[in-house]
Amino acid sequence: MDETTATSDEHQTARSSMWGGRFSGGPAAIMEQINASIDFDRRLYRQDIAGSKAHCRMLIETGIIDRADGEAILNGLDQVLQEIVEGRFVFKTALEDIHMNVESRLREIIGPAAGRLHTARSRNDQVATDFRLWTRDAIDDLDRAAAALQQALIAQAEAHADAVMPGFTHLQSAQPVTFGHHMLAYVEMLGRDRGRLRDARARLNECPLGSAALAGTGFPIDRAMTAAALGFDRPTANSLDAVSDRDFAIELLAAASLCVMHLSRLAEEMVIWTSAQFGFVRLSDGFSTGSSIMPQKRNPDAAELIRAKTGRVYGNLTGLLTVMKGLPLAYSKDMQEDKEPVFETVDTLMLCLAAMTGMVSEMTVNRDRLAAAAGAGFSTATDIADWLVRALGMPFRDAHHVTGAIVRLAEDRGVGLEDLSLADLQSVEPRITAGLRLDPTGSAASRASQGGTAPDRVRAACSDARARFLTPEAGP
Amino acid sequence: MDETTATSDEHQTARSSMWGGRFSGGPAAIMEQINASIDFDRRLYRQDIAGSKAHCRMLIETGIIDRADGEAILNGLDQVLQEIVEGRFVFKTALEDIHMNVESRLREIIGPAAGRLHTARSRNDQVATDFRLWTRDAIDDLDRAAAALQQALIAQAEAHADAVMPGFTHLQSAQPVTFGHHMLAYVEMLGRDRGRLRDARARLNECPLGSAALAGTGFPIDRAMTAAALGFDRPTANSLDAVSDRDFAIELLAAASLCVMHLSRLAEEMVIWTSAQFGFVRLSDGFSTGSSIMPQKRNPDAAELIRAKTGRVYGNLTGLLTVMKGLPLAYSKDMQEDKEPVFETVDTLMLCLAAMTGMVSEMTVNRDRLAAAAGAGFSTATDIADWLVRALGMPFRDAHHVTGAIVRLAEDRGVGLEDLSLADLQSVEPRITAGLRLDPTGSAASRASQGGTAPDRVRAACSDARARFLTPEAGP
Amino acid sequence: MDETTATSDEHQTARSSMWGGRFSGGPAAIMEQINASIDFDRRLYRQDIAGSKAHCRMLIETGIIDRADGEAILNGLDQVLQEIVEGRFVFKTALEDIHMNVESRLREIIGPAAGRLHTARSRNDQVATDFRLWTRDAIDDLDRAAAALQQALIAQAEAHADAVMPGFTHLQSAQPVTFGHHMLAYVEMLGRDRGRLRDARARLNECPLGSAALAGTGFPIDRAMTAAALGFDRPTANSLDAVSDRDFAIELLAAASLCVMHLSRLAEEMVIWTSAQFGFVRLSDGFSTGSSIMPQKRNPDAAELIRAKTGRVYGNLTGLLTVMKGLPLAYSKDMQEDKEPVFETVDTLMLCLAAMTGMVSEMTVNRDRLAAAAGAGFSTATDIADWLVRALGMPFRDAHHVTGAIVRLAEDRGVGLEDLSLADLQSVEPRITAGLRLDPTGSAASRASQGGTAPDRVRAACSDARARFLTPEAGP
Amino acid sequence: MDETTATSDEHQTARSSMWGGRFSGGPAAIMEQINASIDFDRRLYRQDIAGSKAHCRMLIETGIIDRADGEAILNGLDQVLQEIVEGRFVFKTALEDIHMNVESRLREIIGPAAGRLHTARSRNDQVATDFRLWTRDAIDDLDRAAAALQQALIAQAEAHADAVMPGFTHLQSAQPVTFGHHMLAYVEMLGRDRGRLRDARARLNECPLGSAALAGTGFPIDRAMTAAALGFDRPTANSLDAVSDRDFAIELLAAASLCVMHLSRLAEEMVIWTSAQFGFVRLSDGFSTGSSIMPQKRNPDAAELIRAKTGRVYGNLTGLLTVMKGLPLAYSKDMQEDKEPVFETVDTLMLCLAAMTGMVSEMTVNRDRLAAAAGAGFSTATDIADWLVRALGMPFRDAHHVTGAIVRLAEDRGVGLEDLSLADLQSVEPRITAGLRLDPTGSAASRASQGGTAPDRVRAACSDARARFLTPEAGP
Repeated sequence: MDETTATSDEHQTARSSMWGGRFSGGPAAIMEQINASIDFDRRLYRQDIAGSKAHCRMLIETGIIDRADGEAILNGLDQVLQEIVEGRFVFKTALEDIHMNVESRLREIIGPAAGRLHTARSRNDQVATDFRLWTRDAIDDLDRAAAALQQALIAQAEAHADAVMPGFTHLQSAQPVTFGHHMLAYVEMLGRDRGRLRDARARLNECPLGSAALAGTGFPIDRAMTAAALGFDRPTANSLDAVSDRDFAIELLAAASLCVMHLSRLAEEMVIWTSAQFGFVRLSDGFSTGSSIMPQKRNPDAAELIRAKTGRVYGNLTGLLTVMKGLPLAYSKDMQEDKEPVFETVDTLMLCLAAMTGMVSEMTVNRDRLAAAAGAGFSTATDIADWLVRALGMPFRDAHHVTGAIVRLAEDRGVGLEDLSLADLQSVEPRITAGLRLDPTGSAASRASQGGTAPDRVRAACSDARARFLTPEAGP
Repeated sequence: MDETTATSDEHQTARSSMWGGRFSGGPAAIMEQINASIDFDRRLYRQDIAGSKAHCRMLIETGIIDRADGEAILNGLDQVLQEIVEGRFVFKTALEDIHMNVESRLREIIGPAAGRLHTARSRNDQVATDFRLWTRDAIDDLDRAAAALQQALIAQAEAHADAVMPGFTHLQSAQPVTFGHHMLAYVEMLGRDRGRLRDARARLNECPLGSAALAGTGFPIDRAMTAAALGFDRPTANSLDAVSDRDFAIELLAAASLCVMHLSRLAEEMVIWTSAQFGFVRLSDGFSTGSSIMPQKRNPDAAELIRAKTGRVYGNLTGLLTVMKGLPLAYSKDMQEDKEPVFETVDTLMLCLAAMTGMVSEMTVNRDRLAAAAGAGFSTATDIADWLVRALGMPFRDAHHVTGAIVRLAEDRGVGLEDLSLADLQSVEPRITAGLRLDPTGSAASRASQGGTAPDRVRAACSDARARFLTPEAGP
Repeated sequence: MDETTATSDEHQTARSSMWGGRFSGGPAAIMEQINASIDFDRRLYRQDIAGSKAHCRMLIETGIIDRADGEAILNGLDQVLQEIVEGRFVFKTALEDIHMNVESRLREIIGPAAGRLHTARSRNDQVATDFRLWTRDAIDDLDRAAAALQQALIAQAEAHADAVMPGFTHLQSAQPVTFGHHMLAYVEMLGRDRGRLRDARARLNECPLGSAALAGTGFPIDRAMTAAALGFDRPTANSLDAVSDRDFAIELLAAASLCVMHLSRLAEEMVIWTSAQFGFVRLSDGFSTGSSIMPQKRNPDAAELIRAKTGRVYGNLTGLLTVMKGLPLAYSKDMQEDKEPVFETVDTLMLCLAAMTGMVSEMTVNRDRLAAAAGAGFSTATDIADWLVRALGMPFRDAHHVTGAIVRLAEDRGVGLEDLSLADLQSVEPRITAGLRLDPTGSAASRASQGGTAPDRVRAACSDARARFLTPEAGP
Repeated sequence: MDETTATSDEHQTARSSMWGGRFSGGPAAIMEQINASIDFDRRLYRQDIAGSKAHCRMLIETGIIDRADGEAILNGLDQVLQEIVEGRFVFKTALEDIHMNVESRLREIIGPAAGRLHTARSRNDQVATDFRLWTRDAIDDLDRAAAALQQALIAQAEAHADAVMPGFTHLQSAQPVTFGHHMLAYVEMLGRDRGRLRDARARLNECPLGSAALAGTGFPIDRAMTAAALGFDRPTANSLDAVSDRDFAIELLAAASLCVMHLSRLAEEMVIWTSAQFGFVRLSDGFSTGSSIMPQKRNPDAAELIRAKTGRVYGNLTGLLTVMKGLPLAYSKDMQEDKEPVFETVDTLMLCLAAMTGMVSEMTVNRDRLAAAAGAGFSTATDIADWLVRALGMPFRDAHHVTGAIVRLAEDRGVGLEDLSLADLQSVEPRITAGLRLDPTGSAASRASQGGTAPDRVRAACSDARARFLTPEAGP
């Protein structure tokens, strides 16, 4: 949507009635506005029509409706779909929701036979089915988008498997790590995110159709047939539960909250890393924003917005949990508030994943700045302690204290640990030998335990991550 | 918006690139989508133009720009406003936000002099000013809408000041109260809501204009002049704070959360009261929903939706609090996520207040059902205990135990307390006299302490509430 | 804890210093209070010692420490454990956390060899391991407690598989269902809850030990050995991620939020069902609360508290998501705020599950009240429509309209649908025959589709639920 | 609490019954645990006794109880208070809550006359009164603690009113500001926080006593007398509302959420500023944490914990809003869940304010690092544009573009703006004269508009802030 035309804003007009200017139409206008869902649930059109077609075929096969009526319905639904896809369909608020909009148009096209489609069905099981189908598709989209970001991260990890940088705790230098290792941490997070999506998908993949309003139906339907036709693993087990359940929506929001939280962490790092004081990475033109007055500026707007959109996703999770709290069975109108938070969350997370993929793919890593920073802050102190344990057999806690004395010596002199002479070191602990060598690159290379930061480990971890996450069988 | 035309939904199309089908435009499309705010901040147009005009007049009066340029700007801004109001303005996403859309159009109309408007100003203080102005207007709207609901509640309270009903604790009958008294409880809640809105309004009413990007400006501006012109009480005291502060938005969301919580309580009562089992009130046709198959049905859809929309408001509060957590000063792009939750919350609360006003105004109270229920459940037990204290001087705790024995007697007999004879009562406590009389109406009438449920108290409370809440000076 | 002794409350004492009376100890007192975690993380003692023992055995087997030291450490740790279990251990706030409390005591017991335990380990991977182990145990506890509630629900479902009651939508009677069917809806919800717990358990079951501070270690450790010893499926893949990750805690909080939401729905129903107006069930003495004055009263306090505790669990989820938002890698002290919300949530949910299990097990179902209510409200209207479709071949939408006319007729006469004569019915639709019979019991029995409410279906569903949820292999 | 003795943890013991090991006491143990509130509401003892004394004096004065009984009650209550203060009182869980614990002990001390205290009162109005009194005290404590932090910030602002540093937007240098100006931004935020506390205090300051269970009372009480005795402005207006209302608790949580959000922003800045890369400030030993191995390290643990505790406060707000959603009037047991989130939030915020006050008071500002950073990043570019507007009369937007060209020139040369010669500048815009001088100190000094960053403005703002916030009349 590139250009839109302004309409006058009712919010500003004078209030002439007890309802205020917003609702000059009175009760009818208020009820229509609070009740109708077509403005947002029209996004379900594809799922609604697919569900109706599956239901119709089952009604034909079980003999509940006759084949001629059934074929008319199927053809009519195809025509409705085409009209919507081509933008020729006129949605009517007076018809409230997507279900009635589709059925009403079907009746215009094929006549009274349209009235047979709703046999052995209710809006309650219909909307539950549509929304599950939509959510399932959204999960698949999100899984692909998360995999694309993993791919971008692994590519940067491979390119910088040996680029030494400070490993931070408390945003203070702790030990040297490699940039590739840091990238792969996010690959793991996204792997868990995809696992949660996969589990949510498996759990939601049961078909509510046939639960009818809330109690099931007396018609001799074949629920297994509709379930299979729509790609569900099985029908739901309890009709009251099937029309009252929105767990699948909340579970997606919870998984999305964790995922966007991970993105917010990387986004925060991007903001810090691109500050003049850190200067670790440089964003591409495409993913930063300048200003007319400071053309050199590269504001990390996209990173900040990803970080901020965390609030929106968390808020949607809080909101839907609140909606469902304390609702008696079975269907209550409250549940109509389920779709917007899910739609908005999926849109938001898709956008954030794409923007982060772009930023990561196109960023330039300043290996010199990383390397310079890696050695600062006595970041190899732990290597001294480890050497004392390994070479001299000191208990770790004692080695810790000796190391502390050495660090204090360097700090008093205003030099780095690598600038101390062997004599200096021996002045603290006489048994130290020339075997103790300290530099960030060596330090990182030495941490070769499984899952550690040594460049060779990182390269192997990249291959492993590709195999675990980016092969065809890794999908949901 | 009654009828809208469907457009094809990109979500469904095949994914052909690394960005997926949603972002086939690649990085540029992603950045535009995540960055541009014109889709929502165009609602600020009226405030933006009012702020610019005040700023321009100050620039003229202080001699920072010359009068001819200034007059051209003022006239041009009036023309822009008119174009927007009349729906002739074309908003451009490429211009990102409302501020640049307006300025760009101004330049088309008056030429290069438009470039002088932004002297001694920045988008940072501009948007802070616009958003405060919008929020202030919204608070005034909400105050009026809350007052309208108070009016509807007081009208019902006056009509049913003496209608006895069960007063519940734990949804169990506790003591008889009057329906009017119950309505007035919500009048008090809304009174506090309006108080919070009033306090929030007073606190936000400081003008950020002149804070510029974050540090103030070297131009000899007169901040008091712009503040006064826009109805602010004073300029903000610190420029860094002024462009970093979104307290006013969060404070509104918090006040809205309390208000919608109150509405959710009344909505819950509406749902329970309209159940067949309670049958206390009947909703009007306008504010209930039937079904084609059960035309007698009156589903309390509006009440359920109000109850549910609580989630949306709570979620927005959680969301914006999350956005602002841990943001370093001064302006960060994260703060662009401030407007949508506020807009949506104000729209939602305005709608909920209007719908509740309609429901309350038009509902029919079933006084017979109320009265019948009021006497059930031994609801006058406390009256016995109070009588024992008052007439016999028993300590309250002892009176409690005697009453318990009487209730048990009635329960064993399967009768109500009013059905026990004096002899029955005396079999438990011989000192009881004929002075002890029990009926729900008398019980309610006896509770005449200040703030109590006695009909006369309720009528006086209605007058008092009108004076406190519905007179001209009661507004914000 | 049955009786506790009061201590004077510092909150009330006069403030004598800039820190106020709460922190009369000045900075040191403030830092100790904000920093120390021993007050809550002492709950990890069992996991901490188990983790240390596994680590120690690995250090022995890999030759990193010698066997004699290692054995001393193992024996010392056993002694520490015993002291804690027996309540003889003295926790010291000055030692900050459980890890240092244990290690310090170990040193007292075995001397300097204790200092070797921390070789190739850091508090960062240690606490991550401890907390995962604790969470895994908690998941198993929760799974068992949820299964116990399923068992109680199934028992009630079996007992009342044929007890007809109103099925509600919008808290209005919609169609007759059976009480057993209603109970089984919650069995399904709990089944999904247990599925989420199981998935969370599988995802967390990777061992962080060996990740050290953040970068891995240079010691020749065997991470597979410690992982296996502690029952983990494998070591974590990335050391930076392993010490920065709290997904498992949040995922548990999200699963708990869904579970307590389900409980809040049943709790709400309990409150409504036990009202005088509904009277569907009666709580046992053990799970209701009376009052001295109204001994017959049965306040559903436990149900209300379960409903309310939903807020606490949601709040903990919101809180921990907020903590993790935007945290740069690797360990930040912020993450110390992870434990209390998890501990409190697990305690709360265990309590709510137990209380609900008790209430469900011991409640008495008033089948007469249920049956009487089932027939009210024209609840068999849908059966008419279905009959018209089945017997007369009407399109469903047309059948709907005919039914509406019949319902209106009954309503105008002030009678139930079952009270209309055949002639009455034929006055609306002449083709209706005596085959159309309406009663709630028959209505429920007719809905025999899979997942439907017919008593036979419910009995079969009970067996099926036992097989799916209560057999040994159904656990996590 | 410095040392505590371990008790064995039931969580770990084998489960022997259907309730699991946690509730081996069965239903009674479960109900006691879910129902009793004495573990937390004992904090209300002082308010409970003060409320009872005021109530008792009113009962005496109105003749509802006789003076001798009344005096006995008053003396007895004083004794109870003393026992609690001195730690001699034994709280009993079987007595459920603070109210019954106090009354039971009173009866032990003075005998049956104790039973007269509860005349014309109920636990519902009693707890509402106690909790309001506690919250009012807590607000006063928080106000004092916030004022102490303002004082610390103003002191640093005065000390560094002229210390130039980079003003950031997007964490990128934007324009030079002064450190004092930055400190004062937080003084404003805290000023708003205190204003919200003050407003909340005024709104809650109405006395529920006399509302009794929910309907008021028939005794001739004098509510104005008890209200005045307890420092309330007036009695509450509606008894149903008075016992159902917890707005005051939520309003405090909302105010606390905004306050801790402000603290989280300063905490984030502390973490960033103390990083090696920024090095803007150095924390004192008292408010940072070292490590045995890296003794030079100053981890900003307190800052991180303050940032993290934001989650806890937000969570409590979410939680209590959730509790109150959809609760029917009047009292429901759900409302017992109101106290813990308020207690925890007040404790947390008091601790965070104290810790931040300590950190700010004792931090050392590295003025050299600030000054060096202030000039980097072409931070004076806006000054060029402003000069072009002022001296040459250019429209602002044109001046922007000229400045952009100058910045690009400096960037291409790899020098700062102040390193460009006049000829360089004139090569871009020939009309530039020697009057254009660029340096960060001059830049900051030039922004002398009201609320701007110029040192003189900052000094004046410090005086103004002292007058507004730290004088006796500034309190709540």
